[in-house]
Amino acid sequence: MTAVLDLAEDYVALNRGRDKKRATLRGLTQINLFFENSTRTQASFEIAGKRLGADVMNMSVRTSSMSKGETLLDTAATLNAMHPDLIVVRHQHSGAVALLSAKVDAAVINAGDGRHEHPTQALLDALTIRRRKGRLHRLTVAICGDVAHSRVARSNMILLGMMENRVRVVAPPTLLPPDIDRYGVEVFHDMEKGIEGADVVMMLRLQQERMEGAFVPSQREYFHRWGLDQQKLAHAAPDAIVMHPGPMNRGVEIDALVADDPARSVIGEQVEMGVAVRMAVLELLAGARERG
Amino acid sequence: MTAVLDLAEDYVALNRGRDKKRATLRGLTQINLFFENSTRTQASFEIAGKRLGADVMNMSVRTSSMSKGETLLDTAATLNAMHPDLIVVRHQHSGAVALLSAKVDAAVINAGDGRHEHPTQALLDALTIRRRKGRLHRLTVAICGDVAHSRVARSNMILLGMMENRVRVVAPPTLLPPDIDRYGVEVFHDMEKGIEGADVVMMLRLQQERMEGAFVPSQREYFHRWGLDQQKLAHAAPDAIVMHPGPMNRGVEIDALVADDPARSVIGEQVEMGVAVRMAVLELLAGARERG
Amino acid sequence: MTAVLDLAEDYVALNRGRDKKRATLRGLTQINLFFENSTRTQASFEIAGKRLGADVMNMSVRTSSMSKGETLLDTAATLNAMHPDLIVVRHQHSGAVALLSAKVDAAVINAGDGRHEHPTQALLDALTIRRRKGRLHRLTVAICGDVAHSRVARSNMILLGMMENRVRVVAPPTLLPPDIDRYGVEVFHDMEKGIEGADVVMMLRLQQERMEGAFVPSQREYFHRWGLDQQKLAHAAPDAIVMHPGPMNRGVEIDALVADDPARSVIGEQVEMGVAVRMAVLELLAGARERG
Repeated sequence: MTAVLDLAEDYVALNRGRDKKRATLRGLTQINLFFENSTRTQASFEIAGKRLGADVMNMSVRTSSMSKGETLLDTAATLNAMHPDLIVVRHQHSGAVALLSAKVDAAVINAGDGRHEHPTQALLDALTIRRRKGRLHRLTVAICGDVAHSRVARSNMILLGMMENRVRVVAPPTLLPPDIDRYGVEVFHDMEKGIEGADVVMMLRLQQERMEGAFVPSQREYFHRWGLDQQKLAHAAPDAIVMHPGPMNRGVEIDALVADDPARSVIGEQVEMGVAVRMAVLELLAGARERG
Repeated sequence: MTAVLDLAEDYVALNRGRDKKRATLRGLTQINLFFENSTRTQASFEIAGKRLGADVMNMSVRTSSMSKGETLLDTAATLNAMHPDLIVVRHQHSGAVALLSAKVDAAVINAGDGRHEHPTQALLDALTIRRRKGRLHRLTVAICGDVAHSRVARSNMILLGMMENRVRVVAPPTLLPPDIDRYGVEVFHDMEKGIEGADVVMMLRLQQERMEGAFVPSQREYFHRWGLDQQKLAHAAPDAIVMHPGPMNRGVEIDALVADDPARSVIGEQVEMGVAVRMAVLELLAGARERG
Repeated sequence: MTAVLDLAEDYVALNRGRDKKRATLRGLTQINLFFENSTRTQASFEIAGKRLGADVMNMSVRTSSMSKGETLLDTAATLNAMHPDLIVVRHQHSGAVALLSAKVDAAVINAGDGRHEHPTQALLDALTIRRRKGRLHRLTVAICGDVAHSRVARSNMILLGMMENRVRVVAPPTLLPPDIDRYGVEVFHDMEKGIEGADVVMMLRLQQERMEGAFVPSQREYFHRWGLDQQKLAHAAPDAIVMHPGPMNRGVEIDALVADDPARSVIGEQVEMGVAVRMAVLELLAGARERG
């Protein structure tokens, strides 16, 4: 992982300059296949690919033949026959990306599948933390809110858990995944206790659009108990950073004063790191494919 | 403004040739952020940016996280973190573009905001007029029809009004903006009188889609009184040109015979000038940003 | 046609390599104008144009000013004024592409219009057949299923019929076009008899979305009588190939075992040939335009 983050650092510098174009992926075809809307993730991958010189093509499910009843595997076979080199996939079902990946020759990048994983989000979070904290281990990280519906949480629990960090999840019991014990994290049902002394406070989007018929909390009540405001944040370490994968529900899981606090919030930097990390991932996977 | 129009003239020539590609904006990222549909304007900016070598990315509101409740300013902050150099914005609310512009480092180009402004439309109209009339001053210009809902009218009244032209608006009282007195234009409620001797007859689209519950004229009646046909046009100067920002409602604000009259109509030329003017604007703003 | 297929063969090789980029269309603008959704065809043309170095722009009807009431001819005039070199058009109405073509200077490529034609599909089918059978004449080709709603069938009947092939259509009387006699094909109303000894079995998608109120067969019954399974396929020549333009309705017009049989099915190869054929067509038309 260090290799990815180090390469991404180069791209942070590139992206801050005027000429942001490289020929690294020139001659290669990248397809962004989004079965679920995500402007920011798709834009991030599109910019990343274009800056590296790839031919980038967006395919969204609404304009897709999937609506004509084609199966996911037929879509995979069709795309594969067009010889893309890189396929970036976002899908609403956990496991769909792995399924598709097995059927194509291109390198496949998971841009989020169901409640399962969102690996480039975990990488960009890692890069952001490393830049701000100088390290990626021996940190206390509190992941707070709607853990149940969050692939961001899941990917971060796995990645950060691998590196000697103290990972906590802070959530109401109804918003915890049933398999939470698997991740070796500490569970808190109280924000102040869960945040206590944390170096990193990672807030999650309340994903009401994924709660079908189930428990949907009142936003007002949710904010009162689980929304991060300055009072709750005061329990974290004095130099704690606040993260959010976006898009934010201001006044629901996070207070505007915290979100916009330049001393604490690294939310904009996360987005910036996202483009850089995706450039690194695209480059490394395209290279691996070449040799592989 | 002469600098923009002169540079645009170079691009008119470029666009008429076979190789329409330049490296002027190579390495730069242009985002077309459209909160409101507009095929022709978006296409015009997309072609302009691509021909100048920029990496162009389209973001439309329907695929945007705005639908997930993100605020305009959070969208601005997110985009900004991706380090675009140019952001082209169309928004349904007057003032939204200025709001967004204050939050980003990129050069922002207003591609139309609410009923407020549409500056590149005014520039392309100016270029079209200059080419056809040889000058941009001492002209009688009649802007006719649905002035109330038209940012095209507003931008043209401002631009043409700055240059010693005689600007008239010709419209029913119900289709005039309440602040019409501000623009120093002559107001007519009769087409024949308003067009009398005009060098330029600028027709506006009847924007029924923006009339919420309010006065919606019958199209037949509207055409009879306010639609430009050959009989009404006969009152203009013998060499008058007819303009329309498109898309046209044929048989509503303009008669097909007038719209398709090669001796009078410059409607196709306006579209052509649109691409050229936008290339010039993108180049000048990107350069200004570089030095700035 | 041999020239197109031969050039396409070069692009098959190019597309299978790593660097798939050429500068053949550099400096040219290609617009994909889709009034009807078709992910695979649009993607195929987009990849084709980008690999040849064109600036490619997608315009779909849903984001188009057509929804504001603009006529097809006004859209054509607008596009034309932007000086594209190539326009790829898909339209739901037969003849719309020819209509548009007459109004623009660019080379226009029909990517499917109503029930009328889909010429690049016929070309990619021809290339696939030529590669597998070594020739494009003296073949028995059975075109099976929903012929009535299929521009694929129509274009193939014309193209293959021109070259001394024995072309059969195999369909229920309700799914034959009224003018079927025109094409000089043999008509069968029984799959086993129709397929008997065929070198090529070309299955068609059952286009229930185009059957307005009319005869809509039960999928189960349709599969029983008209779906291609191994038992029916056994009546074809021992080395017969199976084709389908996609997207497939598995279990309706084709059985999964047949669709996925690597010895018989060339469905993936058709998609691959599609990109190559479109690159050849774009190149030849752009060149013709240059000289013309």
